[in-house]
Amino acid sequence: MSPQDYAAAHADRFNTKLFDLVRIPSVSTTPELAGEVKRAGQWLVDEMKRIGFPTAELIATAGHPIVYGEWLTAGADRPTVLIYGHYDVQPADREADGWATDPFEPVVKDGVLYARGSTDDKGPVVAHLNAIESLVNTDGLPVNIKVIFEGEEEVSSLHLGQFVAEYKDRLSADACLISDTSIYSAEQPSIVYALRGLAYMEIHVQGPATDLHSGGFGGTVHNPAQALAEIITKLHNPDGAVSVPGFYDDVRPLGKDERDELAKTPWTQEDWSRATGLTTPWGEPDYSLRERVSARPTLEVNGMLSGFTGTGAKTVLPAKAMAKISCRLVADQEPRDIYEKVKAYVAQITPPTVTSDVRLLHVGDPALTERDSTAMQAAIDAYTQAWGRRPVFMREGGSIPIVSDFQRELGLPVILMGFGLSTDGAHGPDEHFRLDLYHKGTQAIIAFHQAFAERSRT
Amino acid sequence: MSPQDYAAAHADRFNTKLFDLVRIPSVSTTPELAGEVKRAGQWLVDEMKRIGFPTAELIATAGHPIVYGEWLTAGADRPTVLIYGHYDVQPADREADGWATDPFEPVVKDGVLYARGSTDDKGPVVAHLNAIESLVNTDGLPVNIKVIFEGEEEVSSLHLGQFVAEYKDRLSADACLISDTSIYSAEQPSIVYALRGLAYMEIHVQGPATDLHSGGFGGTVHNPAQALAEIITKLHNPDGAVSVPGFYDDVRPLGKDERDELAKTPWTQEDWSRATGLTTPWGEPDYSLRERVSARPTLEVNGMLSGFTGTGAKTVLPAKAMAKISCRLVADQEPRDIYEKVKAYVAQITPPTVTSDVRLLHVGDPALTERDSTAMQAAIDAYTQAWGRRPVFMREGGSIPIVSDFQRELGLPVILMGFGLSTDGAHGPDEHFRLDLYHKGTQAIIAFHQAFAERSRT
Repeated sequence: MSPQDYAAAHADRFNTKLFDLVRIPSVSTTPELAGEVKRAGQWLVDEMKRIGFPTAELIATAGHPIVYGEWLTAGADRPTVLIYGHYDVQPADREADGWATDPFEPVVKDGVLYARGSTDDKGPVVAHLNAIESLVNTDGLPVNIKVIFEGEEEVSSLHLGQFVAEYKDRLSADACLISDTSIYSAEQPSIVYALRGLAYMEIHVQGPATDLHSGGFGGTVHNPAQALAEIITKLHNPDGAVSVPGFYDDVRPLGKDERDELAKTPWTQEDWSRATGLTTPWGEPDYSLRERVSARPTLEVNGMLSGFTGTGAKTVLPAKAMAKISCRLVADQEPRDIYEKVKAYVAQITPPTVTSDVRLLHVGDPALTERDSTAMQAAIDAYTQAWGRRPVFMREGGSIPIVSDFQRELGLPVILMGFGLSTDGAHGPDEHFRLDLYHKGTQAIIAFHQAFAERSRT
Repeated sequence: MSPQDYAAAHADRFNTKLFDLVRIPSVSTTPELAGEVKRAGQWLVDEMKRIGFPTAELIATAGHPIVYGEWLTAGADRPTVLIYGHYDVQPADREADGWATDPFEPVVKDGVLYARGSTDDKGPVVAHLNAIESLVNTDGLPVNIKVIFEGEEEVSSLHLGQFVAEYKDRLSADACLISDTSIYSAEQPSIVYALRGLAYMEIHVQGPATDLHSGGFGGTVHNPAQALAEIITKLHNPDGAVSVPGFYDDVRPLGKDERDELAKTPWTQEDWSRATGLTTPWGEPDYSLRERVSARPTLEVNGMLSGFTGTGAKTVLPAKAMAKISCRLVADQEPRDIYEKVKAYVAQITPPTVTSDVRLLHVGDPALTERDSTAMQAAIDAYTQAWGRRPVFMREGGSIPIVSDFQRELGLPVILMGFGLSTDGAHGPDEHFRLDLYHKGTQAIIAFHQAFAERSRT
């Protein structure tokens, strides 16, 4: 029996396993539910031991524990795959959030499982264990396996970075497989091969030493709110490109083949209008909407504050003004380099009538896995086999901090192999996961391990 | 005996009267002290009756009462002077605010009276009664007198407008004398002949229908914070002039004589730097600092708000942005006309990628009393006689709402005849009033009534 057939034969039992796990309300942000988070972690450890993992343990952190497992019997000549998923979930309250059914009682309707955590991320997590069980009980594992299931993904992965740094040597592998993203559509699988990085800053403009009376000083003092507005205006060219000198220097150019690939999953202006409520797009004219939000770096104002903003009229001439801005970055931009460039440019365009300061709040590296890497080719094989259709490549506009952490800290190619849909309601009410995608995901993971072993051999 | 000699002879008693009034803690903003506010009003009514006012009464309002008095025996051929002052005071707490002495126990040190309300505005109020008493007991009143002493000036004159509208006919007069401003220096008296008006607005910019994720939409949506920054930037020309079309159309031009007059009380760049903590002034280059803050209209940003402004990093692409802006206006600009012009201009410069709206929050008319009017000439006579020095003319950058109310509602030339100094600490701790200025003020008021009667005759 092939592992694929094994998985198909045990589909009902695999469903039941997932139902059991989603019943545990492992809400990581709610202190009273810390015991439930731990119970979900222990459930996974028990399940891994049942399957036969030689090593499966709950590792304590200062927060919720991390499930860690190893199955390294494939041999030193076989590649090692590091699997990441998370077993904590977003909060859910049937009444307050308006769920149609109890969020922690699995309900299947028309082949769709409704439950908190079904798609984010318990379904994909259990699919990984299903795939391993299917391989172990048939052909045997073609690769060595290391598993991290985190209990704090929904609370900013508070202690994962520390864990990865401490376990760096033990976590060594040849590829990292993360199943926590969505695919383009149920029929069209997709692989996200690039995520954007982030450089989050604050611009502070200081005018007079204290707030002044606008009647007594207005017209003689360069208003810092106005000066900040002038600075912000100069951060973009009129055509929508970022005007910070050198901003695009390290951007890996988009070749024709890559643009053709991205054009396979277009974001039409109609879709854009529906999502934004607007009629007229903005931004770099030479790039498609899809490219602008994924393959191009951006600079956005996230917040702006100066003077009196309460109800009514206060005739203050503010002493200072502040803006939060953030740059989404693409390979091979470096967040700290971009910060230095923004800082230098803001210093240059700050009028002599005020002073300014740019502070760095937060950075995240962009991530990009080469589309022609062995692991990526194995992922193409895997989706093609499970879906009967070759996956398309996509770039994601946001950041997943753990991806760049794994990439930077462990030096691994990271494969984002998701199975759910962006319409699954991951953080909202009535979160759901199509069970056919759950099983296709299991099949795809089996195929990935097989293909990665095969391709690594040659 | 001349009224001037009478006032000089009774200086000690006039001091004692003022001491009595400042002992009453008539803090209008503190509900528990409403009885004290009323007691101060009644004290004035009693004092007016003692002097001989045929009419002196406490008129109830929905808030604190208004003291109203009439003494119209000078005859129909004599002009009528409407006097305005206020008997309520700012809060004062010896410990919390750091007063050297009890704010409601008068202390005289080196000829200076320390007490809450001494300069703002009980000293000037009692000086008016002293002047009337001095005239009545010697030459007789040369003018008809109407008196309004308000009990809510420190709480935005909540019910004065209604009172003035209701008593409009009864308040008819030939000039209005307000003693609630300061003079240039103890040696150099000054007359403020113009106050600026105000048009206070909010600019609202709407981008996407809801806040968006900057990673998912940044680079395709015109960020409303940025669009607002672009709009604000376009409200001024690079040279500091307001760029709203027609903004300066109704500004009464500054003639050479007026500029020469204003140059007598210069605001040096050193003074400006000390007050602002800045080194480089800003604003219309063709006008002096003094002119920019008093004789020229301005447009200032008073507040600005968009997106996330708390601590830390939130990668939001805001749905909207807001700025509070206000225009200080000079004669003969009209606040609503300026609002319409700003609104039209903002509509014109709003990029097609967002929508904007300009809302009017508050208006105040500019005020200007002709320097060659009879009442103003009488004021020059009065200061010249009392100080031995001709007063200089000044324009004030701020607004005093009651001035334009009196000007508009009653059609009166308003004379701002102050006696204190801007350094008297009007709203701060250790408020004080030089007693020599208190007596010079009394002398000046006597001289004003005499001169106004004399000049009105010719």
